[in-house]
Amino acid sequence: MPVQMTLTALPGMPLVKPGDDLAGLILEGLKRSALDLRDGDVIVVAQKVVSKAEGRWVDLKTVQPSSAAIELAAQTSKDPRLVQVILSESRQVVRTRAALIIVLHRLGFVCANAGVDHSNVGGPNGDGGEWVLTLPEDPDRSAAELRRRLEQASGARLGILIIDSHGRAWRLGTAGVAIGVSGFPALLDLRGRPDLFGYILQVTQVGLADEIAAAASALMGQADEGRPVIHVRGLPYALREGSVSELIRPPEEDLFR
Amino acid sequence: MPVQMTLTALPGMPLVKPGDDLAGLILEGLKRSALDLRDGDVIVVAQKVVSKAEGRWVDLKTVQPSSAAIELAAQTSKDPRLVQVILSESRQVVRTRAALIIVLHRLGFVCANAGVDHSNVGGPNGDGGEWVLTLPEDPDRSAAELRRRLEQASGARLGILIIDSHGRAWRLGTAGVAIGVSGFPALLDLRGRPDLFGYILQVTQVGLADEIAAAASALMGQADEGRPVIHVRGLPYALREGSVSELIRPPEEDLFR
Repeated sequence: MPVQMTLTALPGMPLVKPGDDLAGLILEGLKRSALDLRDGDVIVVAQKVVSKAEGRWVDLKTVQPSSAAIELAAQTSKDPRLVQVILSESRQVVRTRAALIIVLHRLGFVCANAGVDHSNVGGPNGDGGEWVLTLPEDPDRSAAELRRRLEQASGARLGILIIDSHGRAWRLGTAGVAIGVSGFPALLDLRGRPDLFGYILQVTQVGLADEIAAAASALMGQADEGRPVIHVRGLPYALREGSVSELIRPPEEDLFR
Repeated sequence: MPVQMTLTALPGMPLVKPGDDLAGLILEGLKRSALDLRDGDVIVVAQKVVSKAEGRWVDLKTVQPSSAAIELAAQTSKDPRLVQVILSESRQVVRTRAALIIVLHRLGFVCANAGVDHSNVGGPNGDGGEWVLTLPEDPDRSAAELRRRLEQASGARLGILIIDSHGRAWRLGTAGVAIGVSGFPALLDLRGRPDLFGYILQVTQVGLADEIAAAASALMGQADEGRPVIHVRGLPYALREGSVSELIRPPEEDLFR
């Protein structure tokens, strides 16, 4: 058997509204694609549709910016109410530059604008307006709940990733990263495994969830909300329990904060 | 047609020695896998085998460390000769910590230990010893040469990526990134493309070469040198001319150096 991995975008996924049954929509999408779920398959879901199903909308008209938000908004040429939402989702501001606020998100990772999304979201009723979308409250929990439903429906042992696109410190362009994980080896620890020549490998923690997130993200595209769910078959590693927290560098080891 | 991308590791790739014809070895691997090359296919090659074919070995026994290398070696508990090789491959040291030297590589990107590899390399004759392997002299050129050969043999329009595994500033675990590109849209610029709701997307430069590098890297594994070449079919974007330099953040825009 060749080592082969196939990623398939579920066709015809509808726009997602608050309260929608995302697991049900994914099962319908699988049916349309004539894909089944087998042991070892991975389902990768865009953060945006998870947040929408969970109703993680904020109406900027209801937001009262703090004085800190007003100050930071002036520095970054942003809407003070949007900055207030960003600060509410963050533990700490790491860096700022025109139009960019890099924060330590309440979920533990460093990202731009706290993952708060203004473009391509359309509001809870799809009519646009002054709505922004925040990340799921607990993406690991969202992934676990999706997994429970999809495993129940299929009888298969699955991995679930919820992903977003993040900028990188030294490289241009975003890349998909995992923000929620269930049943998947987020960090693959190969330390101490001897290589072909008997050396002990030194740096061999692989961010596997992020590598698969990046692969799926390439298939999802950005502007097109029509491909928010990717089915992955052929992951060349065994599934296990896992959490996105495996991927978060402890602050005391972080040289770039 | 479903949007689907399939990655296949070429089976039975041999250990690569200086002067080996890497394009020829890839064509043989394709034959073994019963895969052909079609317009739009992408071939992803591990940096390690490109460096080996190009003889980018350094014998530490021949290296005279400078006083700067000796000092940095003491700070990082490394072999001063290895540190000398790292410095020779770098423009600037960005950060150091025990066992870790993060540099601005002469090729323009920021990475650990200048990509100099000691584990799993075995020396030019496969007998181990005090050899280290440096990155290809000009990975874009290496990719272009591979592309020329593979396009000539197949008549197909191909994309080529040469990839390595890099650590990330804020996340644990390595992820595959492109260090050499030919015929592939390294940075996908979707800025100004309206989204589903007519907003103009703001942050929509996608590091597509890195996303595909990450996908291929997940299939290559780390310790196993047996899967250094990945065939990708179904990239949902058109190929074009491209260079890894598209992915390098200009120093003046870098907030984390």
